[in-house]
This record gives sequence, C-alpha cells and structure tokens, in this order.
Amino acid sequence: MNKPVTIALDAMGGDVGCAVVVPAALHALTGYPDLQIILVGDEASITAELERHSAVPVERLKTRHASQTVMMDEAPSSALRNKKDSSMRVALNLVREGIADACVSAGNTGALMATSRFVLKMLPGIDRPAICTRLPTQRTHTWMLDLGANVECEAEHLFQFAIMGSVLAQSLDGTARPAIGVLNIGEEEMKGNEQVKAAAKLIAESHLNYGGFAEGDDIYKGQFDVIVCDGFVGNISLKTSEGVAKMIATFIREEFNRNLLTRLAALVAMPVLKAFRRRIDPRLYNGASLLGLGGIVIKSHGGADALAFANAIKVAVLEVREGVPDRIRAQLGSWQESRQTQ
Amino acid sequence: MNKPVTIALDAMGGDVGCAVVVPAALHALTGYPDLQIILVGDEASITAELERHSAVPVERLKTRHASQTVMMDEAPSSALRNKKDSSMRVALNLVREGIADACVSAGNTGALMATSRFVLKMLPGIDRPAICTRLPTQRTHTWMLDLGANVECEAEHLFQFAIMGSVLAQSLDGTARPAIGVLNIGEEEMKGNEQVKAAAKLIAESHLNYGGFAEGDDIYKGQFDVIVCDGFVGNISLKTSEGVAKMIATFIREEFNRNLLTRLAALVAMPVLKAFRRRIDPRLYNGASLLGLGGIVIKSHGGADALAFANAIKVAVLEVREGVPDRIRAQLGSWQESRQTQ
Repeated sequence: MNKPVTIALDAMGGDVGCAVVVPAALHALTGYPDLQIILVGDEASITAELERHSAVPVERLKTRHASQTVMMDEAPSSALRNKKDSSMRVALNLVREGIADACVSAGNTGALMATSRFVLKMLPGIDRPAICTRLPTQRTHTWMLDLGANVECEAEHLFQFAIMGSVLAQSLDGTARPAIGVLNIGEEEMKGNEQVKAAAKLIAESHLNYGGFAEGDDIYKGQFDVIVCDGFVGNISLKTSEGVAKMIATFIREEFNRNLLTRLAALVAMPVLKAFRRRIDPRLYNGASLLGLGGIVIKSHGGADALAFANAIKVAVLEVREGVPDRIRAQLGSWQESRQTQ
Repeated sequence: MNKPVTIALDAMGGDVGCAVVVPAALHALTGYPDLQIILVGDEASITAELERHSAVPVERLKTRHASQTVMMDEAPSSALRNKKDSSMRVALNLVREGIADACVSAGNTGALMATSRFVLKMLPGIDRPAICTRLPTQRTHTWMLDLGANVECEAEHLFQFAIMGSVLAQSLDGTARPAIGVLNIGEEEMKGNEQVKAAAKLIAESHLNYGGFAEGDDIYKGQFDVIVCDGFVGNISLKTSEGVAKMIATFIREEFNRNLLTRLAALVAMPVLKAFRRRIDPRLYNGASLLGLGGIVIKSHGGADALAFANAIKVAVLEVREGVPDRIRAQLGSWQESRQTQ
C-alpha cells in the first residue's frame, strides 16, 4: 500500500472549470485508492457539479472555497497582485502549507508560472522554472523542456533543464541514465548558436548522459529520453507538431469522405484508424510539469476534457510518489559538490 | 510561347549525383518545351549516365565539365577556397555570366549558400540570404523562411525575409497581397522575444500585408501566405514537422500490419491511403529558394529522387519566368524610397 497522496485541484481553471475538473477528480479517485483530492474554487459551483454526479466518496474528496478566478487572458502580474484568493493561488498555498502534496491547474499558464514561483519559490540552484511534457516517439516517449516558460535561455539554464528532465525520466520511467539531447539545427559540433554549443559542453562534462545534438525530426525517433531547448524554440516545435498532426488527421478524414467507395473503405478501416488515433491521443499526454519549483505543480491543457485532466492528476500522483523536487535538489547538490572538489 | 529558360544543374550534388540529376533533367525537358539545361560536372560520369537513357534531345541539353565535387560534409570555407572548379561553383558561374538563368543543386547547403553569395553577391538592401520553401496547409500552402541559413536574426532581417517571401507568394501563386505571419509563441502582443516584436512592428508599418503573430500550429492551418522566422527556429520547426509526419506514417503502417484482419482492411483502404500520401508527398515540395542573391539558386534535398529533383527544376523555371530577384529588388527599392520621403 502506497502512502496517501493529497492533490489540490484548481477547480475553476481551464476553458470550462468545474464541469471538467469534478468528473476528472471522481475518475482519478476510483483509479487510486490512496488518493485524496481537495477541490479548490467557488463552493457553490463545485457543489452543484458534484450533485450532478451521484456516488461521491466524501472522506477522500474535500472542497476549499476560493472567492476569485484567474481569467485565461489575465496578465500574470495582475493575477499575482489582485487575485490573492483565486482558486489557483489557494491551491498553491495548500501545497506550501503541506496540506496538499501537489497542485494541478488548467488555468492561465503565465499566471500559474508566476504564482507558483511566488508561493513555492525556486529550488536552490535553479534559476528559472521550466515546462516539461512527455511526447510520443517511434519507440516509447521522450521528455522535452522548456516548452514556453523561458523565451531566452543561457547555457547554464539549459543545463539545469537537462538535470530536471533527467530526474523526471529516472523517476517516472525508471530509466537509469536517460540520454539527453540538445535541440539544434544540425548534428555537427560547429552548427547552432552559442547557447546550445555551450550547453552541450556543460552536459557532456557533467555526470549526465549526454547523447548529442538532436535535430527537429530526432524528437520523434526515440533515441533521446530527454530533449532540452529554450522555451521559444520548444513551444514552436510543440505547436508545430500539433499543427502537422491535425492537418494529417484532416487530410485522412477528407480522403475517406471523398465518395461512396472511400466511405465504405472507411468503415472497414475504422477499427485500425481508431487504434492508430489512440496511440497519438493528446489526452494521454496531458499534464505538463512545472519543474524547478519547491513543490509539484502540473499544468493541464486549458481545453482538456475529463479524461485528459485525469491524466494530469495521474502525473501529479506519480511525481509525489517519486518525490521529484527532492530528487532534483539532490542531483543538483551532488553535481555542485563534484564541481567544487574539481 | 514563353521565352526560353536555361537552367544550370549541379550534376554531382546530393547523395547520388548524376544518377538522380540526369533522369530529372530529361523528365523536366519533356515537360517544358522552352527549357534548356546545362549539366555541370564530371563529363565522363554525365556521359555514362546519359547513355543509360535512350532519347536525348541534344540541342536543348548541354554539358559543361567541372573537375571537382564539393563533399556533402565539407566546410563551406573549404569549398570556397579549394573547390574553384567544382560542379556547384561552375554552375553558379554560368548564372553570373548570364549563360544560365538559374542554378539547381542538391549539394551541401552551407557550401551552396557561401558559394552563391560569393559568386552572385547579395541584392542591394538585403543583408543575408534566406532559405524559403513551400509547405502544405489545410487550405493550400504557405511559404516559410528562413529555414536554416541564419542562426540569429535582427528584426530588420526578419523584415527583409517578409519582403522576399511576399514577392515569392505574389510571383509563384499570384496572390496580390500575401498575408504575412511572424512566428511566435503566442498571439498576444506582449509575448515573444524582442526581435519578433520589433519585426512585427516593422512589417505592420510597411506596405506589406501584416497578418499577425503565427503560432507553431498556425503554419499548417493556412491563414498565412508567408511565415517569417529566424533560421534556427525555422529549421527546427521544419524538421519537427518531418519527424511527426514520419512517426504518424510508421504508426499507420504498424496498425495496418498488426494481424490478418487489419491487413485485409489495409487492402481495402489502400487507394485512399495512397491518395492521402500524395497530398503530403515531400517530393512535391522539394526545391527551396535561396533568396536575396543577385541570381536564382534552388536547393534540392540531398536525398531527393528524380521526381523530387525535377520539382526543384520546376521551381527554378517558375522563378526565372517571374524574374523573382528583380521583383525583390523593385519592392525593396520602392519601400526604401517611401521611407525616405516620410
């Protein structure tokens, strides 16, 4: 039996709030008998949504009122200054106070970053938080960071991302020595900008398992367990991937809808196409980790449905069980020690 | 009847050289009755390859001997210094001398950039060449640049890319006022790095049709005719796209190969899947323009087959007919004039 895990959910975050978060919470509770959930947000809305679902395991599902909601397009500074009783802020406070082990929110990314940083502080030795998520590959999956928290990064930041991504692959996949790739425009050493060249050198000289430069198409081949890049490049690469996948799905649909004959072919091919779609279902990859903070914060996609949001809760549970922030702190500490004794 | 067009082909460039370039040339000649081709490279190799194909229209297909070949992994500086009689260099010389109207090469990208710049010079007012290609979208296609020539770019460079991409969309698609997007990590004005914000401002204040910031997934939606970005981001976005498309193709193949039933479904679905594949066949998008030079240079993918290389020749023919460099020169000139009179 695992130690009980308590997760605070920002029930008002995301495009629809409660209507997704509440059923996702109920779903997660049935899957994890040792899970406790605190739904944070407008009490009336949460209660109404809970009433819409019948069997509620009261002892493992608590609520905590919060009078404000951070808007999806609100400036982070405004959220920080004016929304001290927002569902997001209160959920993060529960983590800081040790009442919850992690927070999951589908709210405004910038506000979640800024508020998390303010409430939970950075781990010593980490300058900036990074957004990290799992992406499918031809073999299994890879962890990519940063996906948009940091527009510009120094080599030292990319190195810190490498440590954090490595810990995530070790903790959640059990990979002993994750192979780390630095995203670049060529595999040759002379290519790329100064930051990626210097970051590659830092990683290669450390205890980490440096796997070389990764080109854009290497992300999905599967030879790297972790891929590091600055948040500008990472975000564009991630969104580009979503765009290509959507275009291909549209084209497949259009071709199978062209005429009677192709629609018949679609009927026959349907189970296969569904099996294919399940493999790249973005809902199964929902739940990005905000790494480098003094606590566990998982960002769900704003448009996530209950299944997707439940997956984000799962990521939070796994990170709590593995004690990800402590492992990052430990790896950073031993690396800094080894550097001082050199 | 169009004016005759003469294209110099680097017959030794790419992974296999003549074996692809010669059949591609023969294919292109049958498609364009007004096309003349000069095959540049090792005379013996070219003759041997020509002999392997029967009907050769001698008067429209000339050869020009070049004693050297630029290696695919050769440093650009070495190619420039030591390969003055390379097939690439001689083909570019033919453009400078006015004997050919354009050059097509599947050779080493860095060497082709450096040699083109040395031989043909930059257009006045353009600081750096950019690599531009057409990408499929959910509607038609979009022109994206830079795809790897410039690792770091100032706002002014991105603005020059916007002018060049706009001319390409006007010339080759006949779009009167191409909508230009600046690749960024969010659509809000406050997001992104300083360069993209400043570039967006320059484009919005010019005669160009500024369409706003484009996120990664917007590339494939089709609302932008041109998308500008620095070469680091552009190259990673392009290669990421290739990686996703390949992974999806692998997954579809695997699912249809899973068992007897799925293999039967594959037989039924085959014509539809083939029609789908034709729509995103990368060979139909082969042929990237090196823009900003005092002449037309088209880069074919190094691993292109004859069909793909023939497509690169087609791009060269279209750019010659439309006089792309002169149109860029004219647009730049009128913009500079309008700026001076303000």
